[in-house]
Order: sequence, then structure tokens, then C-alpha cells
Amino acid sequence: MENKKIKVALLGLGTVGGGVYKLIQRRSESMIHTVGAELEVEKILVHSLHKKREGVDTDLLTTDWKSIVNDPEIQIVIEVMGGIEPAKSMIEEALGAGKHVVTANKDLMAEHGGELLDLAAAHGCDLLFEASVAGAIPIIRPLKQCLAGNEISEVMGIVNGTTNYILTKMFEENMSFEAALAKATELGYAEADPTADVEGLDAGRKVAILSSIAFHSRVQFKDVYTEGITKITAEDIAYAKEFDCVIKLLAVAHNTDKGIEVGVYPVLLGKEHPLSSVRDSFNAVFVHGDAVDDAMFYGRGAGEMPTASAVVGDVIDVARNLQFGCNGRISCTCYQDLPVKPFDEVKNKFFLRMQVKNEPGVLAKVASVFGGHKVSIRRVVQKHVQEEAAELVISTEKVKEYHIKDALRELQKMDSISEISSMIREY
Amino acid sequence: MENKKIKVALLGLGTVGGGVYKLIQRRSESMIHTVGAELEVEKILVHSLHKKREGVDTDLLTTDWKSIVNDPEIQIVIEVMGGIEPAKSMIEEALGAGKHVVTANKDLMAEHGGELLDLAAAHGCDLLFEASVAGAIPIIRPLKQCLAGNEISEVMGIVNGTTNYILTKMFEENMSFEAALAKATELGYAEADPTADVEGLDAGRKVAILSSIAFHSRVQFKDVYTEGITKITAEDIAYAKEFDCVIKLLAVAHNTDKGIEVGVYPVLLGKEHPLSSVRDSFNAVFVHGDAVDDAMFYGRGAGEMPTASAVVGDVIDVARNLQFGCNGRISCTCYQDLPVKPFDEVKNKFFLRMQVKNEPGVLAKVASVFGGHKVSIRRVVQKHVQEEAAELVISTEKVKEYHIKDALRELQKMDSISEISSMIREY
Repeated sequence: MENKKIKVALLGLGTVGGGVYKLIQRRSESMIHTVGAELEVEKILVHSLHKKREGVDTDLLTTDWKSIVNDPEIQIVIEVMGGIEPAKSMIEEALGAGKHVVTANKDLMAEHGGELLDLAAAHGCDLLFEASVAGAIPIIRPLKQCLAGNEISEVMGIVNGTTNYILTKMFEENMSFEAALAKATELGYAEADPTADVEGLDAGRKVAILSSIAFHSRVQFKDVYTEGITKITAEDIAYAKEFDCVIKLLAVAHNTDKGIEVGVYPVLLGKEHPLSSVRDSFNAVFVHGDAVDDAMFYGRGAGEMPTASAVVGDVIDVARNLQFGCNGRISCTCYQDLPVKPFDEVKNKFFLRMQVKNEPGVLAKVASVFGGHKVSIRRVVQKHVQEEAAELVISTEKVKEYHIKDALRELQKMDSISEISSMIREY
Repeated sequence: MENKKIKVALLGLGTVGGGVYKLIQRRSESMIHTVGAELEVEKILVHSLHKKREGVDTDLLTTDWKSIVNDPEIQIVIEVMGGIEPAKSMIEEALGAGKHVVTANKDLMAEHGGELLDLAAAHGCDLLFEASVAGAIPIIRPLKQCLAGNEISEVMGIVNGTTNYILTKMFEENMSFEAALAKATELGYAEADPTADVEGLDAGRKVAILSSIAFHSRVQFKDVYTEGITKITAEDIAYAKEFDCVIKLLAVAHNTDKGIEVGVYPVLLGKEHPLSSVRDSFNAVFVHGDAVDDAMFYGRGAGEMPTASAVVGDVIDVARNLQFGCNGRISCTCYQDLPVKPFDEVKNKFFLRMQVKNEPGVLAKVASVFGGHKVSIRRVVQKHVQEEAAELVISTEKVKEYHIKDALRELQKMDSISEISSMIREY
């Protein structure tokens, strides 16, 4: 008896698309057992039919999207092109034609996830996107299913491998930011224009998706505060070591009574925190829920086969739903409409480094300015005392963002203070 | 309009049962949104109706199992009694009556998982057991779904919180095994009879379940080699620190061409391994697959609410299946019948500590015995040199278990060797 076949189309055959194609071929045997059907790549949408592609059956290639969306035999469309358009229109057309969609597209899901999930639900279709956040790491399905009994209050992650690689090199090998970025570019971790990575935009899109799922309320990327790692210096790293901390670019989201707090920024993180030991280009997502307590999910955040692992996991899920006629079983879980708190209202602890005149009373002046802005000081270290200059390193208690900013603005105007060198949040 | 209700019965109202009851009450509102139905605890099977139970509606209590299994309104049975019988018979009867089952019972699933899953499949019922391994940590669903596109070659975990707590105290606070065990007992981490924990039996049952799922082939608990932590000494811990390692009780399973290798034993683990930073009573499971590469899942391995988190996650999954009429969607995934390799044939690296006479030529004699048994030495440290005695600390390359045991047997007979003090595997 011939095995039942489920036919899929791939949109895109770049790094991730190539990985997905390979992995589906590799698992063709075992899927008959785990899914009860054979997965078959029927068509692959590409830009050019003439580019040389190792190991891919060229008969599958097409530049004609209509030949895919109008093919009634294709039940699953795998979108691995990236970017907003034409991916968005194609996913909409595919769902409209009753096809199930698996996507790895974080930009698209961060900006249009809500409407696309609604469209999928309206057509009784699956729209799965595990690969869009933290690559290979199972995090979306665990949040939507395994931890579904929890009220999640915190999601916090290292969700950008490029910046984690750079910070690891700066920390472990005393590289400068520039040297570490050059190394990351050389290894293919960083793109030619590294802005989206080093300025925290990539992580910001991912935390928009993560917090929407964790808190059951749509969080838009535009509501996410983002700050990158370009200002982190060797001096900051040295102090982190002195305080038994590391510096990590964290995507942080809290669900509070007064709204969702969400941002991406570098953090001085104590070595006892599970995220502190996540090195190199690895990613990890830390979750706190009222029942589960602390949990963490760790793995590869990018790469050909790791991303393919997440995509194919989703495809297998759709295939199982097809076998049981239950597509659309888990759709959008945003049933609340919670406000996102303006970031200025969010409370954080701060590590501050400033260059001051080495004169009596300077600390009293600084402390008085902080006091006037409700900033409580937890620790002060004075260093590098030369004839005329000193460095003040201050750790604060939790304080609202606008209070610390107001205080620093006032300090910058003072004669005794020549420079505010660093302002890094602490955890 | 009244919400649709899905009625469940609890078997057992101990620590875990109490947590599940509480969590279902706590989520009654949100589940209407996430599941589209209300979960209602209809009956709770207990030993005694007269025991005082805070916050539980006593009208729900019953000692009559038949009143549950014969109640057509109850669709889901949650087994949180533990132990083989009567849990096994009740689960069989529940499945026979077309009820779906969620269980936290590791003993039962390790010994009878295969037959129970077959029975569930025969009745088109769900039998979910996420809580049976590593408590709150999502690991079974990630393996069966998220990582379903992978060929998993390695599963390795810290899956017993009691022993991890003991080893953490021994490592960080230089406690003796006895003192750390006493502390664990005081905190309620260790039971009155700690044998199942400290001898690795509890971890052995969990790795039987994990490896069955990861390798798609049933692994029985009786096939799992188990060795506990009772022989670990302060001296071993001190050497681990010297070599920049920790000592962890690991459950280890590898899928090799020549069969599955599976065991539980203490391991000297390098500090760069993600499992090395798992402290106190936390659990973690590390997985390596051909596409995902390395991944790790970290969290609470036990406790009232963490275990309830896993159980209720499963219950929500069953409820969603009920809504879509697709129960039995993911059943047993053991489609292979792979042999388990006799543990004597497994290759490991070893850390050996032995007391020898301080005389010329003793190292040559030891090395010669190792050479004769195909044991390659990676590192030798000679310490504690007194007038007449010395300590030899040897690390070997990978060698078959029976070779090292043969070598040690021969060494023990030698006059120059007064004691083989430790034999710990290295990773």
C-alpha cells in the first residue's frame, strides 16, 4: 500500500529554506511512523531558476507563486523568505486558499502577527511560527501548551546570538566592541549592516512576539524600548567582573498590574542567574510563572539546520492536525488587551559610571541630586583617583526611568562632573 | 450563554493533587479563553473522607472509584496517587471507559508506559504524562513535537532534585554527604528512606521514559545502569574543583549504531557544559539532535505547584483535543525496537583515585596494568606524598566499562596499591 502523502511548498531557498528542504528529505522515512504520512516537497518558489543549487531537484523550482497557491494538492506552505512583502501577501493568499502556513519570519509576525493569526483562524487553518523566536529553541509551543496553566509574570531572554557572541568575546577575551564585531562578521554571525542586531531591534521584534504569547495580549514592536550594546566599553566589562556579574543584551518583559513593561537593553546580570552562563551565539529564554516558578529554554538561536529543526517541528504538527482533522486547534491566544507601560515609568536598578573632579564634597553633591530625584544609592565606589580627576561608580536601587534620566541631566550640567560614562541597567 | 464545561476527576489529593486542584480553580476564568471551555473538578478520589483538607470542597471527595469511572460526564481522569497499583488498574479502567488520562506517575510510566499508551491508542484516548519526568520542565512535549524533525543522539539530564541539592551543598559549602543529606531531609527534599534518590533509581526511571521518547524505542527501567552518589567524598569534590569541574548525578542516554547506552551515575563535568551551572534542587535536560544541535530545558523538578503546572498543561491539551475531536492525536512514538547495549560494553572516560605505596616504579606498574586492559591514561597527578604513601589521581581516555573494571580488579590485588578510593566517570 502506498503511504499517504502530504504535499508542501517552500517559499524561499536561502539558508533556512535549504535547511528545511534537507531535513524533510532526511526524515522522509521516520515521518511515516511519527506522522502516519509522507511529507513531500512539491514546489519551491525561488527568484531565479538558473542559480546553481546543490542537492535540490530542479524540477521543483518555480518562480510562479500562482502555480503554488492554485495547486489544490499543496496543503502546507512554508514561508522562509523573510521580510514583510511579498511574504505577507503570499501568506494571506495561502490562508485564503485554505492552506496551512509555517513561517520563520520574525519581522512579519512581530508587526502583523495578530491579523495573520485572525485570518488563519477565520479559515480554520494553522499558522505556526516557532522558528521566528530564538531559532531552534522550543519556546512558543511550550508557552502556548506546556505552561498554559500558568500566569506568566516574566519573560526574559538572550534572543540575539550576534550580540551575545560579541559580549562573550568582550568578556572572556577582553576584546573591544569593534574587534568582537569584526570577528562576528568574519564568522558570518553578523550581517554587513549589523544595526538590527547591535541596536537591539532584532531582539525587540522577538520580545514583542514572546510577550504577546506569554501575557495573552498583543504587544507591538513599536511599543518595545530598544537600546543596543554599542556603548558598552572595556571599563564596563571590568566592573561587571569586579561585581561578579556579566553583561548581556536582554529582552525583558514583565506583566504588572499597571501594564506590560517591555524592552531590550544591556544588563549587568549576577552570575547566579541561569541566563548569565549562556555564552557565544547561544540563545536562551527565561520564564517565570505562578505555578512553574522559574524555567529556562536554551539552544541555538539561528543557523541553517537549527532553524530548520523548528520549522520542520511545526510542519509535523500541521501534518498531525491534518491526519486528525483538527487544524486551527491552537490559534491566537491574545484574549486580553493590556496596556504597555511607557518605558519612562518602568523601574530599574542602574549601574552608573561618571568622571568627576577630585575635590571634597563632590559625592555629597551627586548624592543630593540623586536624592532630589528619588534615586536611592545602593553602592558607591570611587576609583582612578588622580591629581584632579576621579571615577565614581554608583549602583542604585530600583527607580523609575524618568527619575534617573532627570537626575543625570542635572548632573551633566554640574561643573564637578566632566562626563557620565555609562548607564547600564542591573538585574 | 453558559460556558461549555469539561469535567475532570482527580485520583489523589496529596501534595501534587492539592496543587492541581488549586491551579484549576485559579485558572477557571482564563481557560474559557484559552481552551474555549471551563474545567470543573467533579470528583476527587481519596483514602479518607474525614481528613481535614484546607480549601477543598468536601462534597467532591469520594472513596468510591466506581462512581468516577462509571460517571459518563467525567471526560478526563488525573492520576496523582503515584505507585504502580491501584494507579495502573484505574488508568486501564478509565481508558477502557473512553476517558482521557493525565498522569504524573513516573514509576508507572517507566515500567508500563508502552502497554498503557497502546491501550490509550486502542480506545482513541489521550494519555499524557509530562509531569512524570523533570516535574515542571516541558520536555516530553518538546521531544515529541518541537524536536520531532530531529534524530536525537543524546539525552542527558539532572533529573533528581534531591541529589542535585546534596551535591550542590557538598560543592559550594564543603558539606559531607551525610550532612547535606540531613539538610535535604530537613527541607523536605529527601524522603525518610532516601534510597530511590541517592542510589539513582528515581533518575533511572526518568531516563527510561526520556530515552524511549527521544530514540523512538522502548527502554525499560531494568535496562538502565544505576549508580548513586553515596560514595562521593570531600576529596573527590576537591579534585573536581582543581580540574575546573563539578560533580553531578547525570542520567545519560546515547543512541549509537550498536544500541542504546543508558545509565545514571555521578559525573565529573566540565564547567563549560550547560548542565554544570544547574544548582540546588533544580533539574535540567540537555538534548543533542542532528538539526537542533544542543538544547537544554531547565526548571523545577518537583514541588506542589511546579508539578501541577505540568499536569494542568497536559489537561489543557486534552481539553483542546476534546474541543476539536482529535484525542489520541499524539500517541506512543516508539516505532523502533533498538537493543540496549550491555553497560559493560559502554565506553566512558574515568577519574580514578587510588592510595599507593610511595616507592619507585609504582606508576610504571599501574600504567602497565592499564595498558594490558586497553586503558589509555590522559593525566596523572601524584599527591599527598608522605613517608610511605601517596595518592595517584588518574584520568583515562574513553574505555569500555569492562576493561576498566578488569584493570581495577587486577590493581586491587597488587601489594603496592592499598586502596582504590574513587572511580567516577568524566564527561
